[in-house]
Amino acid sequence: MYGSRYNLIKPAAYLKSEPLNSYHKNNINKDINYKMDVKAGVFYGIGVGPGDPELLTLKAVKVLKSVDIVFAAASAKKTHSIAYTIAKEHIPDTASLRILTFPMTNDLMEKEKNWENHARIIIKELEQNKKVAFITLGDPMTYSTYGYILKHIQKIAPHLPVVSISGITSYQAAAASLNLPLVEGDDSLLLTSGVNGGESLRKISEKPKNIVFLKAYRKVKDIVAAIDEAGSYATSVGVSSCGQKNEKITKNIKEFYNTPPDYWTLILAKQENTPLSQASHKKND
Amino acid sequence: MYGSRYNLIKPAAYLKSEPLNSYHKNNINKDINYKMDVKAGVFYGIGVGPGDPELLTLKAVKVLKSVDIVFAAASAKKTHSIAYTIAKEHIPDTASLRILTFPMTNDLMEKEKNWENHARIIIKELEQNKKVAFITLGDPMTYSTYGYILKHIQKIAPHLPVVSISGITSYQAAAASLNLPLVEGDDSLLLTSGVNGGESLRKISEKPKNIVFLKAYRKVKDIVAAIDEAGSYATSVGVSSCGQKNEKITKNIKEFYNTPPDYWTLILAKQENTPLSQASHKKND
Repeated sequence: MYGSRYNLIKPAAYLKSEPLNSYHKNNINKDINYKMDVKAGVFYGIGVGPGDPELLTLKAVKVLKSVDIVFAAASAKKTHSIAYTIAKEHIPDTASLRILTFPMTNDLMEKEKNWENHARIIIKELEQNKKVAFITLGDPMTYSTYGYILKHIQKIAPHLPVVSISGITSYQAAAASLNLPLVEGDDSLLLTSGVNGGESLRKISEKPKNIVFLKAYRKVKDIVAAIDEAGSYATSVGVSSCGQKNEKITKNIKEFYNTPPDYWTLILAKQENTPLSQASHKKND
Repeated sequence: MYGSRYNLIKPAAYLKSEPLNSYHKNNINKDINYKMDVKAGVFYGIGVGPGDPELLTLKAVKVLKSVDIVFAAASAKKTHSIAYTIAKEHIPDTASLRILTFPMTNDLMEKEKNWENHARIIIKELEQNKKVAFITLGDPMTYSTYGYILKHIQKIAPHLPVVSISGITSYQAAAASLNLPLVEGDDSLLLTSGVNGGESLRKISEKPKNIVFLKAYRKVKDIVAAIDEAGSYATSVGVSSCGQKNEKITKNIKEFYNTPPDYWTLILAKQENTPLSQASHKKND
């Protein structure tokens, strides 16, 4: 049985009797199999995924293996980069790592000034024809500092080529870890920030079938309360440190009233009642 | 300058003077660098990303390289699998490919029966200690057939271990291709299906700052109308065949009134006015 490459459950007329090469010839979209070249003077924004180094894409690894400089973000208080820790095994020794610090401030002018300064530093390297990467946790287009840096680079030096490379987000990895679909059929998913607590859920009169709160740490009690008030979420679960060995799943989010979660916590809620029987902390052992 | 691995922009006290090994010792979270084993009798649900084979994760590649059987979905009309075309270079010749067909029907009973049948076929192989993968376009937890198969497997054989492996979604890849952030700061993103046209946007009184319509093909005119009616979306763009060589970006979605897009089309809309100057069809050349 397993010697044959094309064991169809429902045999399709043209397949069963055709040899391997014929199938390949007919079905391979050659366009799909192109490969990207890593070029000097190009700015690569790379998502390194949520934590598990195996969740990097082949494309991210390929670019990282050939860059001259890797920029990574850190808050002013922390001087190491989690994104770097995840990606480091693919970064050559000849590449330099540069930590860009971001002050913890709510002053937009100060933030803009800081992003602009960082953009200028990156532009300077690109103009010297360096291969430059900026690495970021998760996906570069989803709640990432990369977006701000990118905007400033595009504003100051619109001629410079930019290639953004997607990464797996924490909420995708959390759903995978729980074996819990994020969104199905004709339904919607609202992806939101928990920075303002449950506000983004409360203000919507038509509650989404599925909702993900990222950054659920600081105002976790208010988020749990808002989900509870909505009254329609049959399944809700907290995932902390997703994709890392210390990943923790909280099946009853009301526990957060008494036990605050880790810093890296998100909450998924679904109107559908979906069993979480497969959720495991040891799926990767 | 580039000989040193730790060229900090803002020198941090402890870093500048410390040698490589010391930095590594202090900053590597050893927990993060675990590796998953691929085991017999485990069901692996694998997202292969939106089209570009380089967007597979290392984890997906690792599992695919060692499986005995790869299941992939196809509609009853089509007998080849796009997911297989994307992933095939990593699947060993010794593995068998099995196409599971899904009838195009709105009869839920018929669908359920079909999913259950497929689940039983997969379970049979798992019980014979095979390494079994189910591959799916994009992410297995995001609008994927995998979710339905998974539910039936969990119901019929809850003892069988399941490992879901995240994949890059089409909307992430579209945003990357456009160099356009999906969601930033404290904002929200509504991810929805275009199967019912603009309905999911119209029915929300509090319009989300960012919205993505997947499956925007069939009812594209109604989706464009709904975005237009909302009046608050300063940026809206269509992306067809994302991540493939024939990727097409439509910066003025009103063109869809006259020229219907490809089958694989999504629409991103943002209340913010974001320039799309960097959007390119040739970013990977």
